[in-house]
Amino acid sequence: MKSEDFIVKTIGKQTISSPLKLSKVIGDGVYDYITPDDRILFDTSLKNYRRCVENGETPISFEKAGPHERLYFDASKTRAAIVTCGGLCPGLNNVIRSLTLQLWYRYNVRHIYGIQYGYSGFVPESNYPYIELTPDYVTNIHLFGGTVLGSSRGSQEVEDIVDSLERMNVNLLFTIGGDGTLRGAHAIHEEIERRGLKIAVGGVPKTIDNDISFIERSFGFETAFSIANSVIRDAHNEARGAPNGVALVKLMGRDSGFIAANAALSMQEVNFVLIPEIEFDLRGENGFYAALKKRLDESGHAVVVVAEGAGQFLFEDQEVRRDASGNIKHNDIGMFLKKHIPEAFKEFGMDVTLKYIDPSYIIRSAAANANDSKFCNQLARNAVHAAMAGKTDFVVGYWNSQFTVIPIPVTVKERKRVDIESELWWGVLEATGQPTMMKN
Amino acid sequence: MKSEDFIVKTIGKQTISSPLKLSKVIGDGVYDYITPDDRILFDTSLKNYRRCVENGETPISFEKAGPHERLYFDASKTRAAIVTCGGLCPGLNNVIRSLTLQLWYRYNVRHIYGIQYGYSGFVPESNYPYIELTPDYVTNIHLFGGTVLGSSRGSQEVEDIVDSLERMNVNLLFTIGGDGTLRGAHAIHEEIERRGLKIAVGGVPKTIDNDISFIERSFGFETAFSIANSVIRDAHNEARGAPNGVALVKLMGRDSGFIAANAALSMQEVNFVLIPEIEFDLRGENGFYAALKKRLDESGHAVVVVAEGAGQFLFEDQEVRRDASGNIKHNDIGMFLKKHIPEAFKEFGMDVTLKYIDPSYIIRSAAANANDSKFCNQLARNAVHAAMAGKTDFVVGYWNSQFTVIPIPVTVKERKRVDIESELWWGVLEATGQPTMMKN
Amino acid sequence: MKSEDFIVKTIGKQTISSPLKLSKVIGDGVYDYITPDDRILFDTSLKNYRRCVENGETPISFEKAGPHERLYFDASKTRAAIVTCGGLCPGLNNVIRSLTLQLWYRYNVRHIYGIQYGYSGFVPESNYPYIELTPDYVTNIHLFGGTVLGSSRGSQEVEDIVDSLERMNVNLLFTIGGDGTLRGAHAIHEEIERRGLKIAVGGVPKTIDNDISFIERSFGFETAFSIANSVIRDAHNEARGAPNGVALVKLMGRDSGFIAANAALSMQEVNFVLIPEIEFDLRGENGFYAALKKRLDESGHAVVVVAEGAGQFLFEDQEVRRDASGNIKHNDIGMFLKKHIPEAFKEFGMDVTLKYIDPSYIIRSAAANANDSKFCNQLARNAVHAAMAGKTDFVVGYWNSQFTVIPIPVTVKERKRVDIESELWWGVLEATGQPTMMKN
Amino acid sequence: MKSEDFIVKTIGKQTISSPLKLSKVIGDGVYDYITPDDRILFDTSLKNYRRCVENGETPISFEKAGPHERLYFDASKTRAAIVTCGGLCPGLNNVIRSLTLQLWYRYNVRHIYGIQYGYSGFVPESNYPYIELTPDYVTNIHLFGGTVLGSSRGSQEVEDIVDSLERMNVNLLFTIGGDGTLRGAHAIHEEIERRGLKIAVGGVPKTIDNDISFIERSFGFETAFSIANSVIRDAHNEARGAPNGVALVKLMGRDSGFIAANAALSMQEVNFVLIPEIEFDLRGENGFYAALKKRLDESGHAVVVVAEGAGQFLFEDQEVRRDASGNIKHNDIGMFLKKHIPEAFKEFGMDVTLKYIDPSYIIRSAAANANDSKFCNQLARNAVHAAMAGKTDFVVGYWNSQFTVIPIPVTVKERKRVDIESELWWGVLEATGQPTMMKN
Repeated sequence: MKSEDFIVKTIGKQTISSPLKLSKVIGDGVYDYITPDDRILFDTSLKNYRRCVENGETPISFEKAGPHERLYFDASKTRAAIVTCGGLCPGLNNVIRSLTLQLWYRYNVRHIYGIQYGYSGFVPESNYPYIELTPDYVTNIHLFGGTVLGSSRGSQEVEDIVDSLERMNVNLLFTIGGDGTLRGAHAIHEEIERRGLKIAVGGVPKTIDNDISFIERSFGFETAFSIANSVIRDAHNEARGAPNGVALVKLMGRDSGFIAANAALSMQEVNFVLIPEIEFDLRGENGFYAALKKRLDESGHAVVVVAEGAGQFLFEDQEVRRDASGNIKHNDIGMFLKKHIPEAFKEFGMDVTLKYIDPSYIIRSAAANANDSKFCNQLARNAVHAAMAGKTDFVVGYWNSQFTVIPIPVTVKERKRVDIESELWWGVLEATGQPTMMKN
Repeated sequence: MKSEDFIVKTIGKQTISSPLKLSKVIGDGVYDYITPDDRILFDTSLKNYRRCVENGETPISFEKAGPHERLYFDASKTRAAIVTCGGLCPGLNNVIRSLTLQLWYRYNVRHIYGIQYGYSGFVPESNYPYIELTPDYVTNIHLFGGTVLGSSRGSQEVEDIVDSLERMNVNLLFTIGGDGTLRGAHAIHEEIERRGLKIAVGGVPKTIDNDISFIERSFGFETAFSIANSVIRDAHNEARGAPNGVALVKLMGRDSGFIAANAALSMQEVNFVLIPEIEFDLRGENGFYAALKKRLDESGHAVVVVAEGAGQFLFEDQEVRRDASGNIKHNDIGMFLKKHIPEAFKEFGMDVTLKYIDPSYIIRSAAANANDSKFCNQLARNAVHAAMAGKTDFVVGYWNSQFTVIPIPVTVKERKRVDIESELWWGVLEATGQPTMMKN
Repeated sequence: MKSEDFIVKTIGKQTISSPLKLSKVIGDGVYDYITPDDRILFDTSLKNYRRCVENGETPISFEKAGPHERLYFDASKTRAAIVTCGGLCPGLNNVIRSLTLQLWYRYNVRHIYGIQYGYSGFVPESNYPYIELTPDYVTNIHLFGGTVLGSSRGSQEVEDIVDSLERMNVNLLFTIGGDGTLRGAHAIHEEIERRGLKIAVGGVPKTIDNDISFIERSFGFETAFSIANSVIRDAHNEARGAPNGVALVKLMGRDSGFIAANAALSMQEVNFVLIPEIEFDLRGENGFYAALKKRLDESGHAVVVVAEGAGQFLFEDQEVRRDASGNIKHNDIGMFLKKHIPEAFKEFGMDVTLKYIDPSYIIRSAAANANDSKFCNQLARNAVHAAMAGKTDFVVGYWNSQFTVIPIPVTVKERKRVDIESELWWGVLEATGQPTMMKN
Repeated sequence: MKSEDFIVKTIGKQTISSPLKLSKVIGDGVYDYITPDDRILFDTSLKNYRRCVENGETPISFEKAGPHERLYFDASKTRAAIVTCGGLCPGLNNVIRSLTLQLWYRYNVRHIYGIQYGYSGFVPESNYPYIELTPDYVTNIHLFGGTVLGSSRGSQEVEDIVDSLERMNVNLLFTIGGDGTLRGAHAIHEEIERRGLKIAVGGVPKTIDNDISFIERSFGFETAFSIANSVIRDAHNEARGAPNGVALVKLMGRDSGFIAANAALSMQEVNFVLIPEIEFDLRGENGFYAALKKRLDESGHAVVVVAEGAGQFLFEDQEVRRDASGNIKHNDIGMFLKKHIPEAFKEFGMDVTLKYIDPSYIIRSAAANANDSKFCNQLARNAVHAAMAGKTDFVVGYWNSQFTVIPIPVTVKERKRVDIESELWWGVLEATGQPTMMKN
């Protein structure tokens, strides 16, 4: 990655004065406009500072998010569209609401179209009318989980989507979705450029797994592991309630075990956390079954948390399947362990009582908790600031506790994963007491 | 059922004065002892009153629960045992705690043994030591779900259990369990009688399904449908979030649909409730699929709640299997519908997005809510009153908002089921809008 | 009270067929219409049965609530009004919603007026327009606390209200309120009769204190003591956290201590419950301060729950003041004890750390819990059944776990109070360990 | 502030090998020891980077927290003491638990003393025995709010405390408390140095207001504003429920309005947020009353959130009083506004219905939420790492999403306050719609 990869594109010259009437002066008690040199360092270690100074290198930095004094778009002629894609995630309605209110009240945009059921809502044959989003329509939606716009997986022809944007005279497109959705947004942006249109494309990154690169935290993630936290408490009760009780909890985490790791750190009743980032054998003296047996011999019960993407190497069938969004469809490690753990322990001559809990939909459909609610509001406001200024092909991000604006391409190059040498994972190992390695 | 079936047995003459120092006088500001003629009518309709008067018939009534002035057992020589059996249910720890505190502080019983892992804890080969229950041990347990004693399914040789009671010099056995556990308790009582022992056997009925006859309400049931209530709200979000979204929630209810019906009445986002008490066809113009299709055509999403014992007639494999507790092991209607609904709609040329939620263990392992906490406390206190007075082969019940004492045999004759002509079920039909009959 | 006092008035002859298409046959799988002899005994003890039989006396009974085969009102010409009065109570929106849906979908009433801000909304000078209640308007309101109609205390001229009903052509008036509101409803009914109008007046009793006579349970009460339950847990943490920590929690309970008693039974961390039904001295060797000191000496902390109407005899200022609803305005016992407990203990030479918690508005404004949600739905449906049948001057009640219809006058004669000889209060004494009497 | 102010003291030479057996190699899959040059930049803007480079200035940085390869203390001879001071804060028990488990299991410290009731527990005359903290003792405490050690306000003679540490042979003192407690810890450290003792003093900063300088986030703060979030939802219901309903919520925030600001951002039903950082007039055309009246005229209801330290300039009585901890005792702005708002509106000829909610103790005594639970665990583990390495006079902090170790003196110089030119406060202004300035 180079420093230049982190420069966000702008559609054209910013000639319109912001209606926000903010300040440029520090100390006058009024919030200030952002300036082009407001950037945030990627690496905040003193070591890296010294390295850059020594090498005369410009450190990688992110554009800071915030209101711009000069805008590209003129509100009176601006139309915005909002679309939510992929699986549910706590906070979707908060983001829709805050985008709408910010556009309406701060920037005076009066035509805001809610596209139904993801990108498919753009395609005429789907026949989903758009929803006219107004302050009245969105006033209470943040109190509910889900998305009032509906969502769907899967992509659509980019040409069809841009045709639709043209037909609707949309100037600002806000896509709320994950990896696949952002790739789609980037493709839409390219088609827009090809046609020479003046449409800004901005993303609010939605990944319940918190696995988008260069973004410290994604909305809904904290709510997700918070609910997982209480499910683990329940699982612990189930495990303790039966002789050799094993409670097996499958949590989200397609490629990254952040939810599993954070949930286990926050409710320390977990004895094993299996995530995609670690390899493990099932059998053999250092394998998972042996470690689980040791735990049962000592304590009579155990809680096992497994991320959905963990242990894919255990399946013989290695054919790669993908869901409608293009994500690899994982084999079901939860059901696999549910079946195989009791069988394996029979071989040990030990009866275990296995209780299997899959809380995925309960977590995905929850309303955002307080901290995520605030976060969604801030993300959405910053997405509007950037789009009104003519930024495009961007996502709003968060880094070092500040909001950023980042080009989509760098964020989708690869997934963020749990660093198994990090304090986070070490904390999990300490909290669970599980062996560092479960390989023979 | 005859009036005489509801007379509770007493071990022997009640010659010990109660240490409670209550009153026998109404109006002195002090709680009164119960008397033998404190009984509660089974049928509280004026019609039945008139019928009985006309026929000179004694109406069926239940013994009222409460403290007795004269006891059979002498606290100083009394030892109690408490055992929890079967699946988890919210409130188990509350009952254990209140039994312990009532025995210890009110009746001065100082030897209270917590038997581990159900009836299996009585059997020497299981090798589970008992837990010495003291006020200190139980002080905070009510704040947690599960059971500190552990539980298990399955029965043990009655002789072994009574041998064990004899070895431990137990005089009072409190069993907390369902149908199977109560049958077991009755068998234990019979063996005790056969041996001429003076051991009282009392049950605190535990049925998360609320399906024990002659008992209006069982502990944990309200907590169960309350959690189901919020799961339904989540399910509704999931259903709304996808094109033709169908959220399918499997709830507990082996033979009776009380949890499903109450949850659906309390969170009116459900469109179909399938319970064991109703028959339905899947196909055909009056079948479930046709009704579900109608709903999707009109609204684009649907929530379906199915009790685990519903639709067993749909399985070709009619071999009866039983779990360790002797309960019929049902075929999994949840997984069945999860598979078959999308297939059936493919035939209609319609893609549905099905989200399957099975919250069973989350519900079973929850801590009791406020109302159940209070209820557990009251049940347990009354169980101790009855046992100290020498009542045996009994369960504590609840009828017309009062606590009762009932002989075990009448309560296990058959399961209580949802009356499909009742206001409850009618309320469900109104709330869901589902057809009264889904048969061709 | 005599048997005749419990006969509900009917406006006129029931000549309209119910649109509900229910059954009159038991066993056909369809819910049945209610008949005039469906009545429920007030006293369900076998003793009372025998007494009545001996004396040839007709036992007191309540009319059972339910759908009538023949109605007085013709839906096509019927207009309904709904009004909420007094303080907030969990479940108000549920009742409004269920009344509306039942009127609209079951009885085809298409004009339902939501009167704003209590009875004051009827009076022209208040200038509050009514809200047109439709299924669409009410669809989500049950998920929120408060009342979408607004409420207010205080009465209005009965003539003005009936003028207003006449102007709006209202035939069915549903008042949701407490004691004062019901008295008002009765006065409205009398004025209606005086004018010879055909307007049914039905009440859904709203008393967060659960203090209306002949009604076992009122909506919102369980939610109220459930929230109080968790406040007590917090209070316990506060008390334990400081040297000689005393947490003082003021709960609702103007004339009756039901909330305080139930909350204390459900969360057994309370050491003293002071309710209006008991007298107590503060000072002296049997007084409250001495008992509290004993507790602190032994345990170092204490939780005290006081109902707002408790200890009114402690105030020298005995002038009776009333709020706008005509309720006696109590002196603030919470603030009184907050001030006087630390002072009194200074005299003992003991520093206490007092933490005062008044959760009233947090409780009143909460959404109904699952059990109350279901209950509100059932109450409302039964209120509509009764009103459509031409019943008037009635409230819907609940007795022996069944829904009833009762004449307003008998319910407002006196408040229901905690019987200090009951199992409930004895349970509180056992749970708290407080002295039975705190009088010198 | 200079770069050197951020160097943490070390007691002596680190000669003991860590028992943790971690790695020093990146990429071997094992967590690494921290090294002395692992420091984190204070200012992470690119601007500051450039400024420092230009000026040849060393940027301010914080020591990174983490495990050290070499320790000062030898576990077998080490005794630790833990003390909690000041008001309750969610997470205290989590911190106590994690300190204990980390000391016990990772560093093999077997003597851990829980000092009761704050610093007063050190003083012989208080006569509070210490609690022997063991894994068994702390196993479930994190599930409860409050502190198992008790707490108290107020300071003690430093000599007495150090005498006590000497008597107990304590080598590691962990103080969990706020500003005052940290000043106390620093004084204890100085006395220790004076006596030439080898006792490390480490602080885990506890400020529910999140107002300690150089620390981005303190434990319990998120839980606090999350509960405030739901209280605001309740308050909104109360405000809407009455004619001209004004719900006034007093939140914590002695010198800083972080809780009020974050709660209002997370639950956007607030119309006014008054915090210590802003000045406002009550009267006059730009004053608060005029703004509130405008809101009521437009919408009929309003929610006002006031931090406890706001508006102190409104009190004529300007005598400065302090609580036992030395904190300025503020005049009660909540009670002030509760009284004066209705009076002021009477003058406008307008009746408002004011509902006052003070949830302070409910918030303080809550258990930590999931995110705070995890955070407490990480803080505590890092405090132990630092102390075992011989760091002293330090607090563990958090900056740029990383854990730090900072000298106590810099953190207590002044309180962190809400920057009214920040995005946070601007977000509040946008969410509430309140005027930027309420001064005439």
